[in-house]
Amino acid sequence: MSKKNALYCQSGGVTAVINATACGVIEAARKSGQIGTVFGAKNGIIGVLREALVDTAQHSDEDIAALRHTPGGAFGSCRFKLKDLEKQKSEYERLIEVFKAHNIGYFLYNGGGDSSDTAFKVSKMAKEKGLDVTCIGVPKTIDNDLPITDTCPGFGTTAKYIATSMVEASLDVESMAESSTKVFIMEVMGRHAGWIAAAGGLAGKNPNEPPQIILFPEIPFDQQAFLERVKWSVENHGYCSIVVSEGVRNKAGEFLADAGTKDAFGHAQLGGVAPVIAQMVRNELGYKYHYAISDYLQRSARHLASKTDLEQAYAVGVKAIELALAGKNSTMPVIKRLSDAPYRWEIATAELKDMANVEKMLPRDYITEDGFGITEACRRYLQPLIEGEAYPPYGPDGLPKYVRLSQHLVDKKLPVFDI
Amino acid sequence: MSKKNALYCQSGGVTAVINATACGVIEAARKSGQIGTVFGAKNGIIGVLREALVDTAQHSDEDIAALRHTPGGAFGSCRFKLKDLEKQKSEYERLIEVFKAHNIGYFLYNGGGDSSDTAFKVSKMAKEKGLDVTCIGVPKTIDNDLPITDTCPGFGTTAKYIATSMVEASLDVESMAESSTKVFIMEVMGRHAGWIAAAGGLAGKNPNEPPQIILFPEIPFDQQAFLERVKWSVENHGYCSIVVSEGVRNKAGEFLADAGTKDAFGHAQLGGVAPVIAQMVRNELGYKYHYAISDYLQRSARHLASKTDLEQAYAVGVKAIELALAGKNSTMPVIKRLSDAPYRWEIATAELKDMANVEKMLPRDYITEDGFGITEACRRYLQPLIEGEAYPPYGPDGLPKYVRLSQHLVDKKLPVFDI
Repeated sequence: MSKKNALYCQSGGVTAVINATACGVIEAARKSGQIGTVFGAKNGIIGVLREALVDTAQHSDEDIAALRHTPGGAFGSCRFKLKDLEKQKSEYERLIEVFKAHNIGYFLYNGGGDSSDTAFKVSKMAKEKGLDVTCIGVPKTIDNDLPITDTCPGFGTTAKYIATSMVEASLDVESMAESSTKVFIMEVMGRHAGWIAAAGGLAGKNPNEPPQIILFPEIPFDQQAFLERVKWSVENHGYCSIVVSEGVRNKAGEFLADAGTKDAFGHAQLGGVAPVIAQMVRNELGYKYHYAISDYLQRSARHLASKTDLEQAYAVGVKAIELALAGKNSTMPVIKRLSDAPYRWEIATAELKDMANVEKMLPRDYITEDGFGITEACRRYLQPLIEGEAYPPYGPDGLPKYVRLSQHLVDKKLPVFDI
Repeated sequence: MSKKNALYCQSGGVTAVINATACGVIEAARKSGQIGTVFGAKNGIIGVLREALVDTAQHSDEDIAALRHTPGGAFGSCRFKLKDLEKQKSEYERLIEVFKAHNIGYFLYNGGGDSSDTAFKVSKMAKEKGLDVTCIGVPKTIDNDLPITDTCPGFGTTAKYIATSMVEASLDVESMAESSTKVFIMEVMGRHAGWIAAAGGLAGKNPNEPPQIILFPEIPFDQQAFLERVKWSVENHGYCSIVVSEGVRNKAGEFLADAGTKDAFGHAQLGGVAPVIAQMVRNELGYKYHYAISDYLQRSARHLASKTDLEQAYAVGVKAIELALAGKNSTMPVIKRLSDAPYRWEIATAELKDMANVEKMLPRDYITEDGFGITEACRRYLQPLIEGEAYPPYGPDGLPKYVRLSQHLVDKKLPVFDI
């Protein structure tokens, strides 16, 4: 019997270390000798539907190794939700056709919560169609909101970047606050869960150190309490550094970033939540402000990777191949914490059905009672995830040597499919 | 005769490496054996007026060495313009009083263009009053707009951060553009001169690589040409990465960030120029966008320092002490380029009067004819400035080990001075 091929797919927002997972997958597959070719879906599940499969056999070991230190999604990712399996089977049937046409025995889906759901449904459909394909989910998301796993690959590096940036920018602000900016605001991602905002709290070890305020999506925004805290901080520390999650809502449950701010042309507020907070501070307290929106920089900052995160990203890729070869259909490798300090962890296995569509929010006891900081329990949890440095190599030009894989597509065997 | 003391002062916006200059100053002073104490002015010139002088003799060699890798301003800086010497002498007279009271023989003023002017005037006043104090300017500014010197300490690190961030974020955008964000905009500092914007151009080696568009303050914004270029880039590359300087102006000379954008309450536009550009792209072309405003992150990112920049920042500090001890009043150590590749440089000496109040703009021949990119001449100039890595040490907590100096103030000897 000829060896089955594997199909690896990146899904949803990419991270600084998702390619380290790809590297783990491909290196483990090559090492096993039991897998024909690993195909990378071009632009995620869209590429599978279109039968656009990148032939990684064309890539040298060196290029694959370089994925370990290259941010972004090497094969492309996408934001694309398959139609509901119960209502519309055509897309799932197409996937199965593509699997058959290319002798896919292993389907590895590297994504967040939605992706677990998709992988789970693909696995159900394959079974229904009598196709022998092992479907494995592989965790990834800077949002850190997957259940069961101790953390999600990608989050630790974002956390390290946000915490370090908060330390650095606050040193800047502190040194000029006497005669210049008094309030600095850094907006971070995490529309639903406040994990990234919480990571900003690692910048300071005690309440006197920045950030003096964190605004979490889990805590309804209390303008009066917030302004009082800003004022107190400026009066006592000379300045106030603030981390604000893009997902902060008012008491009515509306995003602060949306709430009633239109420009002169009636367009909705252009910026995120940081300018809203900044304007509030100036109008009510009169302080000079600055704000940063690191946006994609926070999820692609491979130059400041957490070594812990990188190792975990690679390890789930390797484990995904092991699970695939062992026929553990509909599972996902997850990270299991064995101890906090020193941080010890191992890779365990979860069922995809338990991972799908569950969002892990920041527990209330990870947030201080006043709602503006992180607790010791939160710090114990977060601390190890940013530990260790893992720099990319740099060229003589002073820039990281990231790899851009050539995208050799395998010949198509099926008719065109409209998506 | 007892040794004279030195007074070191940080001025204007701080940088990721201004403390490396402070380190050079203090280490060279200690090594010389010819200087009593180096005082650091607390919060810049304000601290001199207030007689708030930090006694660096209290700091260990280890703490001083750690300044080399610590961003922000260790003694504090300020945005404060002395009154015009010709109209109002009282502030200058106060400075001289403080110099006398604390036996200051050397005044080292670490700043940008305005600071050169201040240092020059202080030196004039000292002469007028018959005071034997040697005034030395020490260059610093991420804006890179000082004349004569090849570059300004602080710029190279900002340039490296901006170029690296552009590479990383663009890999992210590129991998998802098919179904998500098509236009990514990164706003950078530089209200008058486009040096930082130009540095973003180092991210790509050819016109097909990001950033596909740079918007410089030196080039009046042409909306139609810009939108055509965005469209072309999205249609040909799948996405468009844009670096925009905060100082971009329309043809009428108004900042784009200010032009006619008020919110529902009549407040001026909250954000900078990035959201203005972003909205324009969506309104006119319908593309999904994201934007980043790295703000203070770009001038404090010591975690990604340029080794070249760091060495130059340290070297100008050391040279400042040499010039001071040699009695070279009213001068500034500057960087002189000897060759591009390999980059070789040495420290030369300029007259403060030639440095003061001159802004070095990006030359027109550093910008491509279409106004959207950098030329080879620009690349040759910029390239060496971001070369080499110089990481700070990290703690077991995964964060850089930055030092925060205790601020032991020397006893005051003069009456209070109102500023």
